[in-house]
Amino acid sequence: MPASVSEYVESNRARLLDELKDFLRIPSISTLPEHAGDVGRAAEFVAQSLRDAGLENVEVIPTERHPLVYADWLRAGEGKPTVLCYGHYDVQPPDPLELWHTPPFEPTERDGNLYARGSADDKGQMYMHVKAVEALRASLGEIPLNLKFLIEGEEEIGGASITKYVAENPEKLKADVALVSDTALYAEGIPTLCIGLRGLVYTEIEATGPMRDLHSGLYGGAAPNAVFGLVELLGKLKNADGVVQVPGFYDDVAEPAAAEKASWTSLPFSEAEFLAKEVGSSALTGEADRTVLERVWSRPTLEVHGIAGGFTGAGAKTVIPASATAKVSMRLVPNQNPEKVVAAYTKFVEESAPAGIRVKVRVLSAGEPLLVDPDHPAIQVAAEVFGAKMGKPTVFTRSGGSIPIVGDFARHLKIPTILMGFGLPDDGLHSPNEKYKIENYFLGISTIAEFFTQYGTRS
Amino acid sequence: MPASVSEYVESNRARLLDELKDFLRIPSISTLPEHAGDVGRAAEFVAQSLRDAGLENVEVIPTERHPLVYADWLRAGEGKPTVLCYGHYDVQPPDPLELWHTPPFEPTERDGNLYARGSADDKGQMYMHVKAVEALRASLGEIPLNLKFLIEGEEEIGGASITKYVAENPEKLKADVALVSDTALYAEGIPTLCIGLRGLVYTEIEATGPMRDLHSGLYGGAAPNAVFGLVELLGKLKNADGVVQVPGFYDDVAEPAAAEKASWTSLPFSEAEFLAKEVGSSALTGEADRTVLERVWSRPTLEVHGIAGGFTGAGAKTVIPASATAKVSMRLVPNQNPEKVVAAYTKFVEESAPAGIRVKVRVLSAGEPLLVDPDHPAIQVAAEVFGAKMGKPTVFTRSGGSIPIVGDFARHLKIPTILMGFGLPDDGLHSPNEKYKIENYFLGISTIAEFFTQYGTRS
Repeated sequence: MPASVSEYVESNRARLLDELKDFLRIPSISTLPEHAGDVGRAAEFVAQSLRDAGLENVEVIPTERHPLVYADWLRAGEGKPTVLCYGHYDVQPPDPLELWHTPPFEPTERDGNLYARGSADDKGQMYMHVKAVEALRASLGEIPLNLKFLIEGEEEIGGASITKYVAENPEKLKADVALVSDTALYAEGIPTLCIGLRGLVYTEIEATGPMRDLHSGLYGGAAPNAVFGLVELLGKLKNADGVVQVPGFYDDVAEPAAAEKASWTSLPFSEAEFLAKEVGSSALTGEADRTVLERVWSRPTLEVHGIAGGFTGAGAKTVIPASATAKVSMRLVPNQNPEKVVAAYTKFVEESAPAGIRVKVRVLSAGEPLLVDPDHPAIQVAAEVFGAKMGKPTVFTRSGGSIPIVGDFARHLKIPTILMGFGLPDDGLHSPNEKYKIENYFLGISTIAEFFTQYGTRS
Repeated sequence: MPASVSEYVESNRARLLDELKDFLRIPSISTLPEHAGDVGRAAEFVAQSLRDAGLENVEVIPTERHPLVYADWLRAGEGKPTVLCYGHYDVQPPDPLELWHTPPFEPTERDGNLYARGSADDKGQMYMHVKAVEALRASLGEIPLNLKFLIEGEEEIGGASITKYVAENPEKLKADVALVSDTALYAEGIPTLCIGLRGLVYTEIEATGPMRDLHSGLYGGAAPNAVFGLVELLGKLKNADGVVQVPGFYDDVAEPAAAEKASWTSLPFSEAEFLAKEVGSSALTGEADRTVLERVWSRPTLEVHGIAGGFTGAGAKTVIPASATAKVSMRLVPNQNPEKVVAAYTKFVEESAPAGIRVKVRVLSAGEPLLVDPDHPAIQVAAEVFGAKMGKPTVFTRSGGSIPIVGDFARHLKIPTILMGFGLPDDGLHSPNEKYKIENYFLGISTIAEFFTQYGTRS
């Protein structure tokens, strides 16, 4: 038996990485119906890996769409705390495919990174939890606390099934704290716990103009154009300074405490580097009176993710398009309420339709923003372990992203969530050439194992 | 030998229609590279039909893209006038396919109409010229004037090859007047000659934001969004009242003469019917201080024909898109100059790019607007023949569409063009379920034959 988790990880590096690669080869793209079978295969892979790690009561739970995977280890007994480990095995679509240097579902090692869709978000990170259990059992022979695993396959499409499941099974999922690894270190080498997340309202707007595509010569100048109508409408949603124009949108927005804002300004951040290396455009946008971290962490936004309408093939076609659609989302911050925002947004969109244009709004998902108390004992232990492992004090940050499940855990299980992620800011989540630093995968396994040990033995 | 063209047409209806159907079955979509072979087949079909009608010196002329077809009949001799017959055998793409009631390339008779892509624009109409020659030779045994035919396969994609050919072959194409049937009657039963056409500048705008698609949670609020940037940019091109915002755009616009405007107001026109039956939306748009006919016939416009960018599949993907493109055209009126408009437009687009967004403008084609003198002798004969055939005085109108070749004939051959079209306003050019009234096909054959006869014998 290896003397420590670190030793176990060290002597099993190749296998631990190969198993992750097998997981990443499954194109479990939850939003594309043609990949439903792959999503199912990924769920089975997760279930089997939980069994192999020694977890018990492993279940693949069918839902209306993609299965949940549950497992537990309750042998530490009632005197010990219980951690609910969450992750997701589904991934974003890989398009545009032509921008990938190596195929998205053929994991490739390059420069100390593992390139694959899902390597950081979230397969590579959720798999660390499983491997931490394996490593603990193999090296220490025991796990000094109780564990429950709940892994979903719909995170990238709104997570409807897990939300329902959590709401309906609070007893089964009873725990003291949840652990999620689906975020990033603030920067390479900085242990980071994320204590705030934005909420997300995702919608589709469909605009309809004439009853059919019209000849732009014969009708141009008098007939409404669905694409231009949608363009006009979208232009009303946000001004050039990045300020959302939906009435009342900012009413409930909570400003971060002065101390939190101050801690953000002490973090290393170069706007020039962020612009050049991460964004790669000629200028940043958004609310000019806010720092970039404020804009991304503590300010709500509105984005258009995609738009399509009319003739978009090669060459020229002179039509006045009959219809056009856009995908539009809003990121919300504490204390905005998704339902209230949806209502105000829908009303504004409907009222803002240009003459001759009918609009229809579909709400695809609506998740709440979240803040976690950094003084919770589990978070204190996590911060200490994390800092000790990396040799630096842990920083508390927020993320502009959305992990709706954290809100579900708070609402239905009344527990806080530790967001202990090992990604890096340039991992390229949702982008071509997503990657995960290989060392961080191993660091994550041993850090999480150490957290389980410390939180279990100290309680 | 039949006693008249009308008798010949009457006794050959079924065959004349069947031959047109064969022509319409060829999916000669000039803008789609995968249909290049079909475009070539259509050219051969035209050449063979010209030979069959008795025309001479038939040539299929290769170009950089799709072939031209030439033929002539010069046996009337130098004392007689020469008419240059023009038409095009290429068609628009049929999409959206799902809106067609019967397949676009399987011509179908329904309610007295022939439904097919190209039935009215322009195969069904150009074919009348060929069949008029056939009918004249079969019934009268002679053609009392000289004819040249020049038929192209690039009309729907800007007509670059024919423009070059006309410029380089003024002697070969020498004629007194050109005849084009690619327009519509003002309304069912009203003989109409179109004497004005709008010009067309067709462009593509490409907007680029971040160097790759970004996660909208992690970057939303600070990173430029190529789709929203393009939306902002397009919104600056035209205001909500339909007024184009490019500086200097209206500087050279010529107002129609008071008499011409007055004649338009005397035409039967119901705005309510136009809105309900042709456009099919809840309201018209455009310059409110102009009548609908003015807006479409004598005012320049700007339209967005299509837009694409970001994620547009089913479901949700939370990206900030890296790039987006739009197809944008402007219709021009006398005396606007396409080159001048292109320069002002390109400058305005480049200067209007939002922060962080790079834009690139590609000009796909640029054609001039045109006005024809209604007092030209050939046009007077055409008006008289047309009126006599239909039992009503011929009206002079304009069209909002663009037939760039008419400008080429004016510039390089110094001849006017008779725009004698037999379409109807609801033919659905460029739209699903394009149709051509079957009776108008036969009416066109005999009217054109009668025009040839009268113009030839009177000169």
